Amino acid sequence: MGRWEPGARERLVVAAVDLFTEQGYDATTVAQIAERAGVTKSTFFRHFPDKRELLVAGQETLCRLLTEGIAGAPGDATPLEAVAAGLERAAITMGPGSRELAPRLKAAVAASTELQERDTLKTVSLAAAMTAALVARGVPDPTAALAGELGVLAFKRGYAEWAEDARGADGELAGYTLAALDELRAASASLG
Amino acid sequence: MGRWEPGARERLVVAAVDLFTEQGYDATTVAQIAERAGVTKSTFFRHFPDKRELLVAGQETLCRLLTEGIAGAPGDATPLEAVAAGLERAAITMGPGSRELAPRLKAAVAASTELQERDTLKTVSLAAAMTAALVARGVPDPTAALAGELGVLAFKRGYAEWAEDARGADGELAGYTLAALDELRAASASLG
Repeated sequence: MGRWEPGARERLVVAAVDLFTEQGYDATTVAQIAERAGVTKSTFFRHFPDKRELLVAGQETLCRLLTEGIAGAPGDATPLEAVAAGLERAAITMGPGSRELAPRLKAAVAASTELQERDTLKTVSLAAAMTAALVARGVPDPTAALAGELGVLAFKRGYAEWAEDARGADGELAGYTLAALDELRAASASLG
Repeated sequence: MGRWEPGARERLVVAAVDLFTEQGYDATTVAQIAERAGVTKSTFFRHFPDKRELLVAGQETLCRLLTEGIAGAPGDATPLEAVAAGLERAAITMGPGSRELAPRLKAAVAASTELQERDTLKTVSLAAAMTAALVARGVPDPTAALAGELGVLAFKRGYAEWAEDARGADGELAGYTLAALDELRAASASLG
């Protein structure tokens, strides 16, 4: 039942998000983040080139995992089945630490126009990554673009529910994102 | 057959896009834009608070027209029929001047990370505007979000084809965006 105990990299992320929430993104320095995390500035710079990259780092991992999951789906998988495989693979980086951090991250983003813009650009890069991975599987362009958008909507909606859900710590992110994808697939039948 | 002759506001937009293309967004000043457009700096500031807003101004008009078009669609219109009404209404602001400007705007955006980010944020705000307008019509949330994304994909794809199409100056933007929406609707049947 112990509080999640992260390593230096994760402590830096938690410290940064807390400081962004408390005093804003612009006012927070690398020195403050390192101090709050209980590490030296050199340790910060071993993990991240600057404070902005600290937020972008997770995005690149996410794009890579979504791409790998889509590429590794069975050859006869439909576009949305391939997207589901991507969402499942991407969820492996999001453990209890990410879930614990989520409400604070949300508060930090809500308080900063710059972080809101970063967050928006992040979701667009996820859609582009999924679309490219689907095109690489031979999915024709308009279908791939559409499936990529469904994937990103499913990720955002599933992540938000997972982060807010009071049902406890045992629910895995993949369950939420795949349920959201199913809901969107059902909704696509009523577009008219 | 004369070259399109815009007013002061449009001349400022054309001058800005040309300067952004030639020397980059950061290096371009309001004074240079006004000089190129053949107006005074005060005229610039009567139209736009700063050079960034010059690019954002069009986005607000676009969001408003998409929203009005969706709100004004017949009560029994399906979500995608309402989106089509929004795309049709939005196209009225995009005349021959916009089409002539499009390749230069594309080059300016390709050369500037800041403009790429602006452009990305713009498309996300269009999706949000369409989704909100659909929710206001009583379209349930997951369907509205999906239809909003289809609308923005249709706008982006239709606009890109309209701007690049060599068939001449008589094609209206609405024909392109509505055809793109039809293509995406057809593609949604093969998502699996």
